[in-house]
Amino acid sequence: MNKGQGCVRIVKVPVPRLGNNIADVERLAGVLKEELATGRVSISLEVMKGLPLLLRRCNHRVKLILFREAWGWKVAGVKAPDAEEPVCGVALDMGTTRLVARLIDLETGQALGELGFDNPQISIAPDVLARIHHAGKPGGLEELRSVLIDSINSCVETLCKGAGCGVESVYSMACAGNTAITHLFMGIDPSNIIREPYIPAVNFPGTLDARDLGLCLNPGAGVFIFPNIGSYFGGDLVAGILFSGLHTKENPSILVDVGTNAEVVLGTKEWLIACAGAAGPALEGGMSKMGMMAGPGVIDRVAIDPQSCEIKVHTIGDEPAVGICGSAMIDLAAGLFLSGMMDIRGKFVLERCADRLVQEAGIDTFVVVPAKESETGFPITLSQVDLNSLTSSKAAMYSILQVMVEHTAGMSFEDLEHFYVAGTFGSFIDPGSAISIGMLPDIPMDRFKVLGNSSLEGAALFMNNPDLLDEIEIIRQRLTYVELNVNQEFMNIFSGAKFYPHTDRSRFPSVTGYLL
Amino acid sequence: MNKGQGCVRIVKVPVPRLGNNIADVERLAGVLKEELATGRVSISLEVMKGLPLLLRRCNHRVKLILFREAWGWKVAGVKAPDAEEPVCGVALDMGTTRLVARLIDLETGQALGELGFDNPQISIAPDVLARIHHAGKPGGLEELRSVLIDSINSCVETLCKGAGCGVESVYSMACAGNTAITHLFMGIDPSNIIREPYIPAVNFPGTLDARDLGLCLNPGAGVFIFPNIGSYFGGDLVAGILFSGLHTKENPSILVDVGTNAEVVLGTKEWLIACAGAAGPALEGGMSKMGMMAGPGVIDRVAIDPQSCEIKVHTIGDEPAVGICGSAMIDLAAGLFLSGMMDIRGKFVLERCADRLVQEAGIDTFVVVPAKESETGFPITLSQVDLNSLTSSKAAMYSILQVMVEHTAGMSFEDLEHFYVAGTFGSFIDPGSAISIGMLPDIPMDRFKVLGNSSLEGAALFMNNPDLLDEIEIIRQRLTYVELNVNQEFMNIFSGAKFYPHTDRSRFPSVTGYLL
Repeated sequence: MNKGQGCVRIVKVPVPRLGNNIADVERLAGVLKEELATGRVSISLEVMKGLPLLLRRCNHRVKLILFREAWGWKVAGVKAPDAEEPVCGVALDMGTTRLVARLIDLETGQALGELGFDNPQISIAPDVLARIHHAGKPGGLEELRSVLIDSINSCVETLCKGAGCGVESVYSMACAGNTAITHLFMGIDPSNIIREPYIPAVNFPGTLDARDLGLCLNPGAGVFIFPNIGSYFGGDLVAGILFSGLHTKENPSILVDVGTNAEVVLGTKEWLIACAGAAGPALEGGMSKMGMMAGPGVIDRVAIDPQSCEIKVHTIGDEPAVGICGSAMIDLAAGLFLSGMMDIRGKFVLERCADRLVQEAGIDTFVVVPAKESETGFPITLSQVDLNSLTSSKAAMYSILQVMVEHTAGMSFEDLEHFYVAGTFGSFIDPGSAISIGMLPDIPMDRFKVLGNSSLEGAALFMNNPDLLDEIEIIRQRLTYVELNVNQEFMNIFSGAKFYPHTDRSRFPSVTGYLL
Repeated sequence: MNKGQGCVRIVKVPVPRLGNNIADVERLAGVLKEELATGRVSISLEVMKGLPLLLRRCNHRVKLILFREAWGWKVAGVKAPDAEEPVCGVALDMGTTRLVARLIDLETGQALGELGFDNPQISIAPDVLARIHHAGKPGGLEELRSVLIDSINSCVETLCKGAGCGVESVYSMACAGNTAITHLFMGIDPSNIIREPYIPAVNFPGTLDARDLGLCLNPGAGVFIFPNIGSYFGGDLVAGILFSGLHTKENPSILVDVGTNAEVVLGTKEWLIACAGAAGPALEGGMSKMGMMAGPGVIDRVAIDPQSCEIKVHTIGDEPAVGICGSAMIDLAAGLFLSGMMDIRGKFVLERCADRLVQEAGIDTFVVVPAKESETGFPITLSQVDLNSLTSSKAAMYSILQVMVEHTAGMSFEDLEHFYVAGTFGSFIDPGSAISIGMLPDIPMDRFKVLGNSSLEGAALFMNNPDLLDEIEIIRQRLTYVELNVNQEFMNIFSGAKFYPHTDRSRFPSVTGYLL
């Protein structure tokens, strides 16, 4: 099957005659049912309206635009077989802080453009929790919904303009986001997500009409929403699993999405278990709170010579430094530790740091870039408070991985064939640095696979191959969500992981440095 | 099962707890799938939006409004179990000249009101053929669609006002009409219906969104459109078959719908064959062209003493006569024939008519009501031209019945257990009169059943019992449409039937009168 053949098909409909005078719509449906080997085909009113004339003009050959719903196939559009305008789909990753949309030509499978933009809900409420609270205020839900939809509409318009087509060329969309943002996207109150017993309004809305959602696409367009597994495990992760192929592997692999929270999925083609870090108070705030977003002048790589303690920073665009991003923070911590400027408890070591260590409001603060070298005129620093936060986060991450792999699945990290790292933040992490600080397990480097924006990629995959709906359903049904039980045992594990790289040094044989 | 229980149900949804934290929508869908014994339940976005709060406010008991689609059930609305506003459906008969809508309380099955109104398309084009041509002109289709939809909207609004509710209380509608009007209702070009090989655009559109059709009902309302069998056999007849129960009978019965055309369905629970009179040129113009519509002063019954030739007329409302309706025309012809004022060829007999027979523009014309007794000041008359037209029509009707029963099914009229007469015109026909003129076969009077507006009644049945969708599908699949072959054999049969009651007197043993 050609890429995209599932969504756009040219079909030949039998020519009616006195002996075969079935109506146009039913004649078309008959051909489709045979081609798609399905009993269920639905044809939208818009398509019914255009079909009779088009069939007769085009010698009973027409181009159909299809999408799949749970119960069968829907014909969203019909065109002349040689129509020039592209038939497009949009894959959309809906992040709490940022959205990324990709316009895809459904006939060729090619990307026609991609555009990222800040989630405009940030200006109303900064994080998921605040947004859920805001949705409970009068008009709040509608306010959050409409800014989001408006921003998506204008993004799609820009993408279409760039591809030389109009928004009416977009016949389908696949959206992946966390549970809360998915609710807000649909205009559904998410308040019960954060109230015991933490119940989403809906987990699998399926394919909705673009119009019902307020999206300006083709009038017949369908919008597939990746299913949530629960309040703390969203469709973005299901899309990520789909993209990683974790659910198709013989041997166990793990997928870690480090975004606002840390979410972990472990499994094979036989079983899938998952947990989300939001359940653990240690991860509150999350890894991504550290550092700033990528942009010109942001430090994205740090290297420290373990002997001389010389620091080399790389900034995006090689501009004067303005700040430091999260993944560089992990490099920095790794360098500080391996050079002995930080001890195994995660405290700065004055003798090694020397004049790099200053006091700010009575707190030990490490100067990464001195004021005179920075763009802002202020030094770029890492305080002991920041460092403590990073220590907690890396310990929480490792603890979650340990609990999942060793305690829940009864395996060892060695058993993992692939270690997929996903998420906008996770994609930039250097696995070597993450191992050095004891955040990721010490397994061979070639087992780590950085997936990039796996949520977007999963949505794009589905856009091109509607048959993946079956795989999504399999993931949804097979996945067992494990509530992370933050009990004394977890806290013991967590305490051990708060050391650098770990109290149990045998877990990190490859980590060697100044102190070790 | 209570009447209406299929459409409106109160369900108890399990209370969520930490161990059973399935999302609200899926928990509801789970209960419904069990109750309805189906794998397919779809829940509209509007319902998803209202569900979480309503579940928690109403102790997890909610009232659901459902309708059935081909592939499963759809939840169109959700309310508190004790909500006071009624949950309504509308059954709609869409006739070429007149529409009738009935507002139904879906919880009790009771009619809350009924309203008939002229088809506003008449002012644009008088008959089906003219409307199909008009639809081909620029803007013509939209013009015909919008006047129709507007009139339905204002009718539903009036009905709702009368029942003390708003249009948002209407969650479903079932529409039955002929193939052309069904196309116009959906805004689909019907032009191929009248072009060889006579192909409708669509026969079974299923359930469409009210909004897509421009109907102002509840935003989640579904509109079921009774399927056509072909260009000349519409959903109104399928609704009529459903209402008659013809498709469930052990022994053969026949259903005759005498409206603009004469449509005939013959069958049992095993088989159904149908034909429509539009195929025969003899019926062109149809029975219903004769006479005027019912209204105050319209003669609806005529009785003639066979010996004295005294004429007694009954008018609607006992008002002075203004005209004569179609069914009374048949009474009149029967009386004229049985009293010897008309001969077996359908020509006036001067000796018997005496001074009742006058000349108008050189044509023999029979005075039914003299000018001095009528409301208009003009005599109410029946000309030889009118009578010839009636003769052709009655002969065509009998010929179609004979061809269907004797030639196609190989039975005799005696074999028919029931003879259902439907249609706004047919409902007023006195079977005795119709037998006397040789229009209907001479079978025992108790086999005739007058169904009234069977199209409306069929739609109303379905509103109250969505499970009838299966029966509609059975009717649709089982029914074989027979093209009436107007060949020499038919013309021979037709010629015999143009006599009163028939050239073959043995066919009408019960018909005796002055001449016989």
